[in-house]
Amino acid sequence: MAEQSPKLTRIGLAGLAVMGQNLALNIAEKGFPISVYNRTTSKVDETIERAKAEGDLPVFGFHDPESFVQSIQKPRVIIMLVKAGAPVDQTIKTLSAYMEKGDCIIDGGNEWYENTERREKAMAELGLLYLGMGVSGGEEGARNGPSLMPGGSFEAYKYIEDIVLKVAAQVPDSGPCVTYIGKGGSGNFVKMIHNGIEYGDMQLIAEAYDVLKSVGKLSNEELKNVFSEWNRGELQSFLIEITADIFGIKDDKGDGYLVDKVLDKTGMKGTGKWTVQQAAELSVAAPTIEASLDSRFLSGLKEERTEAAKVFKSGGFGDILADQVVDKEKLIDDVRQALYASKICSYAQGMNLIRAKSIEKGWDLKLGELARIWKGGCIIRAIFLDRIKKAYDRNPDLANLLVDPEFAKEIIDRQSAWRRVVSLAINSGISTPGMSASLAYFDTYRRERLPANLVQAQRDYFGAHTYERVDIPGSFHTEWFKIAKKKNN
Amino acid sequence: MAEQSPKLTRIGLAGLAVMGQNLALNIAEKGFPISVYNRTTSKVDETIERAKAEGDLPVFGFHDPESFVQSIQKPRVIIMLVKAGAPVDQTIKTLSAYMEKGDCIIDGGNEWYENTERREKAMAELGLLYLGMGVSGGEEGARNGPSLMPGGSFEAYKYIEDIVLKVAAQVPDSGPCVTYIGKGGSGNFVKMIHNGIEYGDMQLIAEAYDVLKSVGKLSNEELKNVFSEWNRGELQSFLIEITADIFGIKDDKGDGYLVDKVLDKTGMKGTGKWTVQQAAELSVAAPTIEASLDSRFLSGLKEERTEAAKVFKSGGFGDILADQVVDKEKLIDDVRQALYASKICSYAQGMNLIRAKSIEKGWDLKLGELARIWKGGCIIRAIFLDRIKKAYDRNPDLANLLVDPEFAKEIIDRQSAWRRVVSLAINSGISTPGMSASLAYFDTYRRERLPANLVQAQRDYFGAHTYERVDIPGSFHTEWFKIAKKKNN
Repeated sequence: MAEQSPKLTRIGLAGLAVMGQNLALNIAEKGFPISVYNRTTSKVDETIERAKAEGDLPVFGFHDPESFVQSIQKPRVIIMLVKAGAPVDQTIKTLSAYMEKGDCIIDGGNEWYENTERREKAMAELGLLYLGMGVSGGEEGARNGPSLMPGGSFEAYKYIEDIVLKVAAQVPDSGPCVTYIGKGGSGNFVKMIHNGIEYGDMQLIAEAYDVLKSVGKLSNEELKNVFSEWNRGELQSFLIEITADIFGIKDDKGDGYLVDKVLDKTGMKGTGKWTVQQAAELSVAAPTIEASLDSRFLSGLKEERTEAAKVFKSGGFGDILADQVVDKEKLIDDVRQALYASKICSYAQGMNLIRAKSIEKGWDLKLGELARIWKGGCIIRAIFLDRIKKAYDRNPDLANLLVDPEFAKEIIDRQSAWRRVVSLAINSGISTPGMSASLAYFDTYRRERLPANLVQAQRDYFGAHTYERVDIPGSFHTEWFKIAKKKNN
Repeated sequence: MAEQSPKLTRIGLAGLAVMGQNLALNIAEKGFPISVYNRTTSKVDETIERAKAEGDLPVFGFHDPESFVQSIQKPRVIIMLVKAGAPVDQTIKTLSAYMEKGDCIIDGGNEWYENTERREKAMAELGLLYLGMGVSGGEEGARNGPSLMPGGSFEAYKYIEDIVLKVAAQVPDSGPCVTYIGKGGSGNFVKMIHNGIEYGDMQLIAEAYDVLKSVGKLSNEELKNVFSEWNRGELQSFLIEITADIFGIKDDKGDGYLVDKVLDKTGMKGTGKWTVQQAAELSVAAPTIEASLDSRFLSGLKEERTEAAKVFKSGGFGDILADQVVDKEKLIDDVRQALYASKICSYAQGMNLIRAKSIEKGWDLKLGELARIWKGGCIIRAIFLDRIKKAYDRNPDLANLLVDPEFAKEIIDRQSAWRRVVSLAINSGISTPGMSASLAYFDTYRRERLPANLVQAQRDYFGAHTYERVDIPGSFHTEWFKIAKKKNN
């Protein structure tokens, strides 16, 4: 019965893992009849059952690709939610065999942007349109309103605009969390940077937790209260909210809190890695995001860390913490400020990465508009993004978020607390790689004169790479070695 | 006259910029008659003139590739020293047209290792052998004894072994700074990591300079003395030596010292970028090297920094430095220790990058042997490398240099000074991104329990990515949101 569609549907969705199921249900719930397909057909039936259970939503299931494609009104639009890489190519091959000129395929996965650009070209040769659409918000966002980042064919975007405007998260005074990002792989690229920023946010929160717990000796109950309190102020965000939730959850398999039973090994799926690689490629400093990626790598070396802890404990180390006496309330307030200031640095890096790529590719991306569509639906959604949007509204050509007058003022107000927290951590033997890297980023960016003159002099000394001067234009080379040798003799 | 070789030469070299000229003269000086060729023929004549001037060395110049190739004894070996990328392909095309089965081409440039592997395969189809040989030491090293990192065909290495053993830098009790690195692109890869480590060393030295100058108010004369003194101890190295030299050189275009006239913008040529990208690819934390790359990027934004300095000066910032009172002698001693401890972390990262790649590619690289060939000739040559060699001699499977008993002891002895320097820098508004990142690396690696449990709990909360537990084996997922919602209601 599920195989029979009463009439043609508005759109199709292929790939029915939880994200795909949820997005299909969301689309159906917004009033758009949708056809669904999955290679493992039990997932199709599962989706149909859920559609019935969740209010008889207009979801129509198909067990074979041909009838799936033919059930959709023309020009057909099919969203794929399958694993990035080869499975996407396979799905495209399967579906495109039954599609016709003017139809459109949309990849909703975390795909490498160049793969999207390659496929867009290949599809164009078949007369098909293509979009790479970043989808953020996890399973819950997919079901109830994600942030959507469609990039590629503008014509294809127009086909789905009515759908995505309703399916995306809705933010009061700010509209639906979707916009046409730009050409080519820009939607995937922007989603990738979103994820890089997410890595940074999570790492900074983990460091705040670490300092409060290890130095401030806060209990999970106290941590829950601190994060709940923070979620009512400038840090208000999805990640702070769920962090508060996490600290409140008891272990169902033993005594105490579940968070203390979770192994300190962090997984990852590639977008953070790509962000760091692109930062290097684009010559954009992204130390906070790099620190968060490195922390994930080091978290994975649990056995090595256990051994190293023994080596340094037996070497007279490990007691630094004992003597720390801290004013708990003051520490909580300092950590809040350090977290916020670090977060500004992290977003400044992410935004500058997007701009650098936009210039390289001629995408003409609007940074303020991206901040707007991240205000709801996605993992990094936060009140903070409204400030970023306003900063770019004030000055679309802002060189760096740090020098926006409002952010600059916020940082100046918080810098003493920020320096106190990082120093305290260092002197407590606690690493705060993300906060330290953020502070170093700030202190480097705001200095007119860096010690880079020495590095350039070294490069000219051993490699004749030349240097510029502060006082005279041009390129200079000095025979440093010969002069020094003569002098020393 | 230069066109006529009395008999066949032992080897050829194509690409006669300064590095190529110097390497050719070095080879000739060691008793190996060498043919040289360059597309721009004036460079050929220039090389011949130098060969005459520097002691009638057996260098034979050719203006056309065919006679150049035919002047070399069989099996012919030709070293290319041309710009990485397309020029290498062009040179191979030109030369291979005249080469015969069993002949060998060696790329001595800073080439991306995958390009070498691609070329090795293409050459094999023509019956030609191929090596990618990292050459470090700058112009001076090329002339008087570089560190050489040949990788690729072992058979080809055997053709040149007698030459490279004499041409490479010679270190007493340690032998010539050359070894057969391994298969494929391993020679280029190892040279790339050498350069990444070099970035780290230079950045750490620049930070030491910055703290001593900006906080300690040392003059250039004092800095020269400090670095000269350091060069007699554990920090003894080429880069410390040239740094001392640099501080002693007066400006020939005005008053004062030249280093103060050098613009604080650092150039770069790609190997540092590749190192950071490979670190991400290999899931190896390399925060010190990343910090050095980011510092180069930020140094390039001179105009933005000048603007940012104004914004933060007018915001009441910029006077932090004024109140610092420091004991100069104590500061110098602390900075020395911080520099040394940071350096250990940086080399630990570089060595682990090499090992990770060696495992991935099956290269079977010997880390201790690499440390040995870096003891002389190359830019990072240092007494310190002997300690690294010994650490791997003690334990070839050492997980990380940090946990070698001797290095661990050195770090324990220096950690208080290290923490003082980074804290002082932070509280002085001076960024020490490399030293901070190194310290965070150490403090992360030596901790059995990291706050990564929270990050993994967050990932499971919003993305159902599952988590492991500290007490029960297996993979777990919790419905955090549902539990929290029920609890909060």
